[in-house]
Amino acid sequence: MTAPSYPVIRLKPKANARAIRHGFPWVYDNELVVDRRTRKIAPGTIAVLEDGERNPLGLVAVNPESRITCRMIDRDLDAVIDRAWFEKRLSKALSLRERLFDAPFYRLVHAEADGLPGVVIDRFGDTAVVQPNAAWADVAFEALTEALVAVTGVGSVIKNASGRARQLEGLDNETSVVRGTAPEAPVPVPMNGATYMADLTGGQKTGLFFDQRPNHAFAARLSQGARVLDVFSHVGGFSLAALAGGAVSGLAVDGSEAALALAASGAEAMGVSDRFETRKGDAFDVLTALGEEGAKFDVVICDPPAFAPSKQALEAGLRAYERVARLAAPLVAEDGYLVLCSCSHAADLAKFRGACTRGIGRAGRQAQLIHTGFAGPDHPLMPQLAESGYLKSLFFRL
Amino acid sequence: MTAPSYPVIRLKPKANARAIRHGFPWVYDNELVVDRRTRKIAPGTIAVLEDGERNPLGLVAVNPESRITCRMIDRDLDAVIDRAWFEKRLSKALSLRERLFDAPFYRLVHAEADGLPGVVIDRFGDTAVVQPNAAWADVAFEALTEALVAVTGVGSVIKNASGRARQLEGLDNETSVVRGTAPEAPVPVPMNGATYMADLTGGQKTGLFFDQRPNHAFAARLSQGARVLDVFSHVGGFSLAALAGGAVSGLAVDGSEAALALAASGAEAMGVSDRFETRKGDAFDVLTALGEEGAKFDVVICDPPAFAPSKQALEAGLRAYERVARLAAPLVAEDGYLVLCSCSHAADLAKFRGACTRGIGRAGRQAQLIHTGFAGPDHPLMPQLAESGYLKSLFFRL
Repeated sequence: MTAPSYPVIRLKPKANARAIRHGFPWVYDNELVVDRRTRKIAPGTIAVLEDGERNPLGLVAVNPESRITCRMIDRDLDAVIDRAWFEKRLSKALSLRERLFDAPFYRLVHAEADGLPGVVIDRFGDTAVVQPNAAWADVAFEALTEALVAVTGVGSVIKNASGRARQLEGLDNETSVVRGTAPEAPVPVPMNGATYMADLTGGQKTGLFFDQRPNHAFAARLSQGARVLDVFSHVGGFSLAALAGGAVSGLAVDGSEAALALAASGAEAMGVSDRFETRKGDAFDVLTALGEEGAKFDVVICDPPAFAPSKQALEAGLRAYERVARLAAPLVAEDGYLVLCSCSHAADLAKFRGACTRGIGRAGRQAQLIHTGFAGPDHPLMPQLAESGYLKSLFFRL
Repeated sequence: MTAPSYPVIRLKPKANARAIRHGFPWVYDNELVVDRRTRKIAPGTIAVLEDGERNPLGLVAVNPESRITCRMIDRDLDAVIDRAWFEKRLSKALSLRERLFDAPFYRLVHAEADGLPGVVIDRFGDTAVVQPNAAWADVAFEALTEALVAVTGVGSVIKNASGRARQLEGLDNETSVVRGTAPEAPVPVPMNGATYMADLTGGQKTGLFFDQRPNHAFAARLSQGARVLDVFSHVGGFSLAALAGGAVSGLAVDGSEAALALAASGAEAMGVSDRFETRKGDAFDVLTALGEEGAKFDVVICDPPAFAPSKQALEAGLRAYERVARLAAPLVAEDGYLVLCSCSHAADLAKFRGACTRGIGRAGRQAQLIHTGFAGPDHPLMPQLAESGYLKSLFFRL
């Protein structure tokens, strides 16, 4: 097949072509020459990116409606973005996961770092959930799906279009089943010896977060014989892993009835229902109430939603993280463990650690930091996009 | 027992008493009122630290000869630093390690974070190696040793006085056996399914580094069926773990004949000598030679000594890390793994990652960063001393 003739899009003379050459994968709108021709490029079009001197830098996916206007797709100018191209990228992604995990439950594609900019694919055994969070992936969705089925052999593919990122790209939010049938009941997902119930069509994001897997495992290691409190529990990520690790009791707190029902059904599947309880409510209220009750736990985990999703929200977010730490620390028994997590891009590790340390200090406790964990290895990063290291889990001993 | 009457040492009015109140454990020489009385305080004396308004902040260990003149020992002004006091701190430290590890091989005390400022204790089964790297621990060494034997039941205690930190404290460097007898042969140490040989009296530092344990484990997870190159191998930390994890071959490179002999003897104890080789030489030379030979490995690990031990050495250190990455990347087979480590305080995570990324890029390779690991949980940190997080291991897939 001969390569199609791609349109050309050009960097301004002063734009940082060197960063692109050294692997930075994005070009922002203000770095590009915008003329009549450029404006006519349809969202999701593949184009040749050139520097100010008309030297080609690679093939990019263009979306004039997004602040990230170009995403590097392939350094090879002759590449054709077809099913075979997707199969190559997906095979490479799959081989990493097959090396890492015994069972086919993982994030199969983590966007830029897996060579598929803006595309997230989670695999739940025979079902894959695809989030095409950039316009080009919507355009090439059929080729991507065919390749996905061919490489992994999954029977069902769900297109999940609910991500916030799609709004920034000007894309619709219609979720649909594009291959096979959607599982009617929640899918049991084995991780760290626990069983989680993932609702692949009704749940938050793709029904289950794989990113905390190594942090769940570390918490489980601390939980033999422990009383465990899991705040912002979602479907029981930390508490069910802790019970699998030998905890004597697990209490999951969440604002979502549906998430807690899935957690309870996971506990039932594991045969640990007698050691597992749930409490629905606002996390801050429940932490306060537990404090007033004088409740004590050996391991307390707080894994809240992103309190600092943007730079504007940073100060308020850090105060919220500090408040979580201040309310949670008094619930930790002497020599117990407090696990504090952040999934905020804007709060970097030092700032988040500072907020947690202040909160623990204000609760009158002293802490050792025994472990700092990030997202699991099925969530690789481009080294050039350090900020994509959003997830941080800090393990304190009080 | 009534508390002894301790001398008093006072902060200058402008010194940051708030930081101390919030848990910062050190006072530098320029923050203290220095008068005739202060100058007469002998190194290692316990004193009451007061703020500028004469409010007591806690008991500190004083060393007028060290830049870190005061180290917080106990917030309780009535504390007596005797054998019972040490037993309490050591029991707390031991309970963390016993929760974390199946066998008694670990760092038992990691200085400030374990409440024993400047004191490092590594445990190798029945033998403990103590590094009293601050003057107060030399003064109280007998009480510390008695408590250590009582709490852990070890038969032998070695005092290792070779640490650089002791020079900064103005202390001697006489290493001695203070309880029992020193093991005559290297001690076999089980970690991650491998067996390491630790020379507790003749080796580098305490004969074995426990800090890389979780990173050895992660490398082992990548090594099933792999050809593994372990550069700056010391006693075979990464390569023996990889062989235990199913590597088909391991090549350890180090400048020390003694370290390589211990590595080979570990491989023999594991029964994997047929898959293990060593090569003595300068790491840069060997990396260059292997590149010229066109050698390829599935997993390459470089765990060099601290190239940037101080802020002054930072730029040169980062260039050395970049050079390691540039020379090592070409040796990694397609879809293989490159593990780059730094134990430099001065090179923070972002700077170190940047140097590695540049080096990989200069070798013409693209990388995913799949995992960032730090020192193991038997090396806890004080959250207030973020800089003490010296060890960083980056796992790239090329």
